[in-house]
Amino acid sequence: ARVTPRFAGLCTFCRYPMLEAVAPENRPVDWVIYGVPFDAGVTFRPGARFGPRAIREASQYVKPYSIEHGVNICDVLSLADAGDAPIKPFALKGTLDSVSEFAVGIGQREKGARLMAVGGDHSIAYANMKATWELRGRPAGGLALVHFDSHLDTIDMTGGEKWSHASPFRRAVEDGILNPRSMLSIGIKGPINAGTDLDYARDNGVTLVTYQRWRSEGVKTIDAFLARLSDQPVYVTFDIDCVDPAFAPGTGTPSIGGFTSAEAFGLIRHLARAGRGLDVIGADVVEVLPDRDVAGITSLLAGHVMFEVLCLNALARRAGRG
Amino acid sequence: ARVTPRFAGLCTFCRYPMLEAVAPENRPVDWVIYGVPFDAGVTFRPGARFGPRAIREASQYVKPYSIEHGVNICDVLSLADAGDAPIKPFALKGTLDSVSEFAVGIGQREKGARLMAVGGDHSIAYANMKATWELRGRPAGGLALVHFDSHLDTIDMTGGEKWSHASPFRRAVEDGILNPRSMLSIGIKGPINAGTDLDYARDNGVTLVTYQRWRSEGVKTIDAFLARLSDQPVYVTFDIDCVDPAFAPGTGTPSIGGFTSAEAFGLIRHLARAGRGLDVIGADVVEVLPDRDVAGITSLLAGHVMFEVLCLNALARRAGRG
Amino acid sequence: ARVTPRFAGLCTFCRYPMLEAVAPENRPVDWVIYGVPFDAGVTFRPGARFGPRAIREASQYVKPYSIEHGVNICDVLSLADAGDAPIKPFALKGTLDSVSEFAVGIGQREKGARLMAVGGDHSIAYANMKATWELRGRPAGGLALVHFDSHLDTIDMTGGEKWSHASPFRRAVEDGILNPRSMLSIGIKGPINAGTDLDYARDNGVTLVTYQRWRSEGVKTIDAFLARLSDQPVYVTFDIDCVDPAFAPGTGTPSIGGFTSAEAFGLIRHLARAGRGLDVIGADVVEVLPDRDVAGITSLLAGHVMFEVLCLNALARRAGRG
Amino acid sequence: ARVTPRFAGLCTFCRYPMLEAVAPENRPVDWVIYGVPFDAGVTFRPGARFGPRAIREASQYVKPYSIEHGVNICDVLSLADAGDAPIKPFALKGTLDSVSEFAVGIGQREKGARLMAVGGDHSIAYANMKATWELRGRPAGGLALVHFDSHLDTIDMTGGEKWSHASPFRRAVEDGILNPRSMLSIGIKGPINAGTDLDYARDNGVTLVTYQRWRSEGVKTIDAFLARLSDQPVYVTFDIDCVDPAFAPGTGTPSIGGFTSAEAFGLIRHLARAGRGLDVIGADVVEVLPDRDVAGITSLLAGHVMFEVLCLNALARRAGRG
Amino acid sequence: ARVTPRFAGLCTFCRYPMLEAVAPENRPVDWVIYGVPFDAGVTFRPGARFGPRAIREASQYVKPYSIEHGVNICDVLSLADAGDAPIKPFALKGTLDSVSEFAVGIGQREKGARLMAVGGDHSIAYANMKATWELRGRPAGGLALVHFDSHLDTIDMTGGEKWSHASPFRRAVEDGILNPRSMLSIGIKGPINAGTDLDYARDNGVTLVTYQRWRSEGVKTIDAFLARLSDQPVYVTFDIDCVDPAFAPGTGTPSIGGFTSAEAFGLIRHLARAGRGLDVIGADVVEVLPDRDVAGITSLLAGHVMFEVLCLNALARRAGRG
Amino acid sequence: ARVTPRFAGLCTFCRYPMLEAVAPENRPVDWVIYGVPFDAGVTFRPGARFGPRAIREASQYVKPYSIEHGVNICDVLSLADAGDAPIKPFALKGTLDSVSEFAVGIGQREKGARLMAVGGDHSIAYANMKATWELRGRPAGGLALVHFDSHLDTIDMTGGEKWSHASPFRRAVEDGILNPRSMLSIGIKGPINAGTDLDYARDNGVTLVTYQRWRSEGVKTIDAFLARLSDQPVYVTFDIDCVDPAFAPGTGTPSIGGFTSAEAFGLIRHLARAGRGLDVIGADVVEVLPDRDVAGITSLLAGHVMFEVLCLNALARRAGRG
Repeated sequence: ARVTPRFAGLCTFCRYPMLEAVAPENRPVDWVIYGVPFDAGVTFRPGARFGPRAIREASQYVKPYSIEHGVNICDVLSLADAGDAPIKPFALKGTLDSVSEFAVGIGQREKGARLMAVGGDHSIAYANMKATWELRGRPAGGLALVHFDSHLDTIDMTGGEKWSHASPFRRAVEDGILNPRSMLSIGIKGPINAGTDLDYARDNGVTLVTYQRWRSEGVKTIDAFLARLSDQPVYVTFDIDCVDPAFAPGTGTPSIGGFTSAEAFGLIRHLARAGRGLDVIGADVVEVLPDRDVAGITSLLAGHVMFEVLCLNALARRAGRG
Repeated sequence: ARVTPRFAGLCTFCRYPMLEAVAPENRPVDWVIYGVPFDAGVTFRPGARFGPRAIREASQYVKPYSIEHGVNICDVLSLADAGDAPIKPFALKGTLDSVSEFAVGIGQREKGARLMAVGGDHSIAYANMKATWELRGRPAGGLALVHFDSHLDTIDMTGGEKWSHASPFRRAVEDGILNPRSMLSIGIKGPINAGTDLDYARDNGVTLVTYQRWRSEGVKTIDAFLARLSDQPVYVTFDIDCVDPAFAPGTGTPSIGGFTSAEAFGLIRHLARAGRGLDVIGADVVEVLPDRDVAGITSLLAGHVMFEVLCLNALARRAGRG
Repeated sequence: ARVTPRFAGLCTFCRYPMLEAVAPENRPVDWVIYGVPFDAGVTFRPGARFGPRAIREASQYVKPYSIEHGVNICDVLSLADAGDAPIKPFALKGTLDSVSEFAVGIGQREKGARLMAVGGDHSIAYANMKATWELRGRPAGGLALVHFDSHLDTIDMTGGEKWSHASPFRRAVEDGILNPRSMLSIGIKGPINAGTDLDYARDNGVTLVTYQRWRSEGVKTIDAFLARLSDQPVYVTFDIDCVDPAFAPGTGTPSIGGFTSAEAFGLIRHLARAGRGLDVIGADVVEVLPDRDVAGITSLLAGHVMFEVLCLNALARRAGRG
Repeated sequence: ARVTPRFAGLCTFCRYPMLEAVAPENRPVDWVIYGVPFDAGVTFRPGARFGPRAIREASQYVKPYSIEHGVNICDVLSLADAGDAPIKPFALKGTLDSVSEFAVGIGQREKGARLMAVGGDHSIAYANMKATWELRGRPAGGLALVHFDSHLDTIDMTGGEKWSHASPFRRAVEDGILNPRSMLSIGIKGPINAGTDLDYARDNGVTLVTYQRWRSEGVKTIDAFLARLSDQPVYVTFDIDCVDPAFAPGTGTPSIGGFTSAEAFGLIRHLARAGRGLDVIGADVVEVLPDRDVAGITSLLAGHVMFEVLCLNALARRAGRG
Repeated sequence: ARVTPRFAGLCTFCRYPMLEAVAPENRPVDWVIYGVPFDAGVTFRPGARFGPRAIREASQYVKPYSIEHGVNICDVLSLADAGDAPIKPFALKGTLDSVSEFAVGIGQREKGARLMAVGGDHSIAYANMKATWELRGRPAGGLALVHFDSHLDTIDMTGGEKWSHASPFRRAVEDGILNPRSMLSIGIKGPINAGTDLDYARDNGVTLVTYQRWRSEGVKTIDAFLARLSDQPVYVTFDIDCVDPAFAPGTGTPSIGGFTSAEAFGLIRHLARAGRGLDVIGADVVEVLPDRDVAGITSLLAGHVMFEVLCLNALARRAGRG
Repeated sequence: ARVTPRFAGLCTFCRYPMLEAVAPENRPVDWVIYGVPFDAGVTFRPGARFGPRAIREASQYVKPYSIEHGVNICDVLSLADAGDAPIKPFALKGTLDSVSEFAVGIGQREKGARLMAVGGDHSIAYANMKATWELRGRPAGGLALVHFDSHLDTIDMTGGEKWSHASPFRRAVEDGILNPRSMLSIGIKGPINAGTDLDYARDNGVTLVTYQRWRSEGVKTIDAFLARLSDQPVYVTFDIDCVDPAFAPGTGTPSIGGFTSAEAFGLIRHLARAGRGLDVIGADVVEVLPDRDVAGITSLLAGHVMFEVLCLNALARRAGRG
């Protein structure tokens, strides 16, 4: 950044190199980050297809050293931008398949690389989770998941449409990719369409830390979940709408009364469990809708969420874990 | 919402039916919501006349079930949108009279219906309070009031103009509509024009919980007020500018350093007194100025404030009170 | 407008009555206007699903008397807003079918009513044209069409997807709904993907008045087309992107270097053929994307395009034609 | 401008000196420019009260030499900013009186100074015209007027309110301030509320050059008017909404299909009658509503309209006229 | 404010009088406030040169009485706006010299006046601190400093450029103007370019209260610093980017996860040490970039920060200190 | 575009390949396009440093086939994006040198490649012209130039600063790079600072087609210039501010009353001299300031200007010239 200014040059995520340009000594890369410019899964406002592009641009201002964790992620991890996954604008399920295939392909070429998908609407989380699960050899029982969101995303819509941004985790549970008993949802809040919308998550053992619960009890339930998880690998999905629209106006289904950015960062950092880090094996950051954004703050926030999630893994890696 | 998408159809408040279209089995309605597209009472930025329209549009995304309270307000209450009150753009007092008359008329036709006015500037609170008071048979001593605001709104301007958005509660006290000893003002903050601007409220026994007081003592004074109020009916007025401009940029006299949306919701929900609910007999939400809004977040916030206030009454109603 | 101010009340198109509220003496209505909040047909920016809502709001400021034509359309025509057609957010062809069915249903109930669809993306033109054609008894040879657009919309995409906003008129020709030899496209301009994209239109006899052709020859070719058309009924489709993005920034595939609003109005008014009017039997106004709009000028323009098209028919009607 | 950059310093209109700071050798000033931050006369969108402030800021970039006329207005005219007139936010007629009084006072102190009022809504034109008329000794028959506007502003509203931005010229005619037979309205266009809205202007001999008439006949009627006017002094009123909303989005009652900025400048410049200039004895520029503006282009346009009007007088002055 | 409305008149900071217009009885003034429209020191987004202008406009709505402190600053302090310092757009060091010289000149004319500079980028803090230090007779050891910021601003860039908004305090330490052991930096946060960027501050004894530290320990370290400082005079520098971009989007190097406005006000007010006030001898508020602002909230925040800092001194003055 | 959607993938200018990724069969490339993210040369609003980035993003929607010219530029020319030139944010002349050197280096590696620079402010035109001139062997007499602009850019500022966006062509003339007698300036307009600002251009034989001159005489003078130029190679510089701010709000020194986009395109296309094309040997497009842009229309316009200029050369190339 001090050689080329941050306002110059082509835009890759956080100025990490393009995958094809990674130096041999940095291969195989540790994390491959790719965009999924797709929003056919939305139920309200479309436009998240422009999310990856906006986040690439805004993230030119994301720096590599975390004061809070005392770690420079670029010293610990080899990171790369693999461009955008192939998508089919008019086909929801077809796109999820093609994204998974793309991601698996990369993971096979870059042995051991972990996958971070940048959305796009939340439906794409299914595709990246599935690819992660397949690259791990389809572990029985499915993956563990930390899920930041205002919405449960385990809803089946009345129209019968099974694939949308309201249902990725229900589909992932059904397909054995996700273990609902190892799923922690943070930031859920109302109002919702019906009380029964909570049933699937509750019936399947998902741990719910609603926004209100967090206000009243703090990180108690989260700590219990993490203790249970121990050093097991975990996938992290971050829907930007768990942060209040004042901080993240650029999203399609804004939910009033959410976290401040600082609170959200505090929660992600808390997953580092006092410096141990977290064995994050895959991640996504989704639901950035640039046309509704203001001064680019939502995209800039998304770039920093990517950074904070990578920090968790950098700490674990530095400590010899994950 | 799962039959007609939230981006389709004509816009009524929160997708509640228009009053003339309410099914017979849902009559008389419990709450009549109406707009007051009026801003001739402002002292700084006009434009709140477009508030009702913007809130109708944004509130298409307000859902009926509160996770926090565990109640679906549409199961408990019959709600309707009565359109906009007749206003006279060039006549302040004349408009207040015509709004009161309109509201009383509705209340007489829909026996027992409560009135929620959506502003418009804060001057209109007088009109809706007066109508509420009249429909209740002009109770001696006046109504109790919970008042969310950055400003006291009990100021007489030097020019001699008695009617404006700076004075509705002073006028209401003078006319016997409002009991100042049963008035709680939450969120008041400086800077103000002069120290003496606080005198009227203090001299008349209004309970003041300034923003700073809330930061230091929490809900202590509020709880004392509620205990004193017991199950007495109460009117709720919510000026959107008690929320910080980061969350509510679309307002005419923004006040820096206010509540977050989550804090404001927490305070409204606290009025439910651990599930008892509140016998809210009338309400207003005011001072939304769409031309200054950003990504519609102020209007969306206003829609959710309406919802949270209705929840208070739904809880009371479900518990057989209010 | 002088009784209820233009900033008050619920929003219907141009303040015309809702269809169910039309007085008996104004029935059957002459024109039924309905929204199609749909954008799954786009190839670039989505968001036109919010077009009908934005146009309803902006068109509160559309007045009924044309100085230019000397006609008050509300004196000549009975106009109504029928709300939004049912759409299926995740199904392109299914939506076109359901919109057609909805429109035919209205046309059958309101004998002789003409249909104006307000988009939504341009794919929906197919549905409204088809309904118009069916209500007319499926005339052999298909309808005549005046088409304002920057794009030909007769393109088949390489992916094989047949239904999108790039192809409605190709589909309409194939299905016998549209007669390409009676089709006039005004405002077409480059750059385009390939020179061969012009072939289908040219091979099938569409009359092309590109923007550049209009600049050099004026209305000569248009006049020849109108002369050939004589008093035959005609469908009018207006894609807002034929107007330059300075005037219509709120659209999904903006095309730089287009008409000014005044030039576009001049061309529509020219279709009145010096006061004869035009027997417009159906129409649509499409591709308004409010999230990209600025100060609502695109939506306001769309409302006035609706007005100008209705004027054409009002003149013909007043003259005993159409 | 080359000593202090245009982004530095307090903002006066076009960087002209404040009236109290004008050097003795430049006194009495030729033109006094003052703001009227008032919008209680509007029928639709308020907010023009912020017009003077926004125009002061944007006009920091208005330079003094006209290439088109070959004149540097600051070499020919002594210009000053007198600040804002005193207004009464809650009193329409009271404000017009107080503005007139303020303007007459200035004119009396600065012998021979002409008055340019910067609005604010169009109702204020009455006040500045009246002051101009009084300073001239109340000439019998009233003043001549060149009026740029989309609207006639000679309408009486049904509510009976006589003072608003729809009626200033009707009031001025009634009070003998304005001679309707010496009034030229340029840029009028539809749609309007009713055909009869044109009657007052037509019946009283106002010369109407509608936008459409100008498109078809050019400046023919304008030239005839100017010839008739000869070297008689004339007042110029410019409502920014005669320019299309693409160029002037920041206004309260936008009218689609108007002049481009270049066309508007061409028309003002044409009033110079090939270098003779025009004996402009007073002027106003009104209806700038900054909250609807985009990148400040409307305010910047207004600043340049002020400049172009002053050029007319500078030319006349240089030629020994006016 | 109750005589002239807040939307009228020319704009000075917080409506304080221009320095040349201060009444004799209010001379010498206590605080001179001036703008520095300069941004050639930025490393990322330029545009802060328009900060003073925007803050002057927004601060029309800053009132004089603090409810929180119970003080009316205009009763205690004589305040004035001295316009903008002369700057050289193409010369960074030359500008700092010319600003210092300008400020010293004012301080010499207004005996005892303190200087508040309004930026502009943070490089200008050096100039105002230097002027303050010189007017105090160049006290050995340098000034004490309370520094609100997300960034340390003690960085030397690799290019060798010594003057920029990244280094003002390093330069001030080197020149003896600032005592690093009496410097408190509040709100620092990551990510940063490298861990070594913290070295200079740590090695020189700067007290660091990072955002995260404040979250975990509150004001403990701040209180210790204040205790050590005792009643020593102190300079206050406030970089608006220490406040989260949701509250202050209008800045050039936004830092996600910062203070809310209310938290920032709480921290400034805390410096009053329970009513003692603070002997603030100079101050600046910097890094407001209006082109990125939203509804003017950043500029309005900056105006209130100015107010809160002045309150600290008003309290001290009222108590006979400072 | 029909394989990868236009909203996917990393952004290069108009989706042309990155220089290092050009296939061997397309080498050497015909045009190398590069960005110059630099704005230290501005006299008013900075921010054009973000121009290249914004134009890369917006130009994803620029297609390759010109209907107007009947040419697909990608069939005729090999085009590539070389990224951004190295710049020195704090050094104006140093940056111009480093840009020239960078451009010469590319031109030497890609034999015969022509250079298109994308600004950045207009000062950078000097650097690209100089590189072009050097690669051509420093032709005596200097290059011919077609210059689109509102401003002459041949001004020396009073401060003595020789390098800025007001003077590139004066410097180029002085250095023998540009032949002022072969320079055509199109679109110049007032107001300007002083009448003498025109002297340098007039005294040195520059052909001036002011906006007003073009309105009155059309392309007469342009045609005479082109005739004189014959098939001589020519450099084209396009300052986006020659287009009216309604079409190009995103610029630093907007000039009211300019070309529409369509008029500007018409003028560029006219340089093709009825299909002959133009031997364009270098070009730049400058002064796009994204922070002031609206819905990206200025950047999109800039992308199409690049396309239209390339068309001129494609036509000449196809015809065996240039």
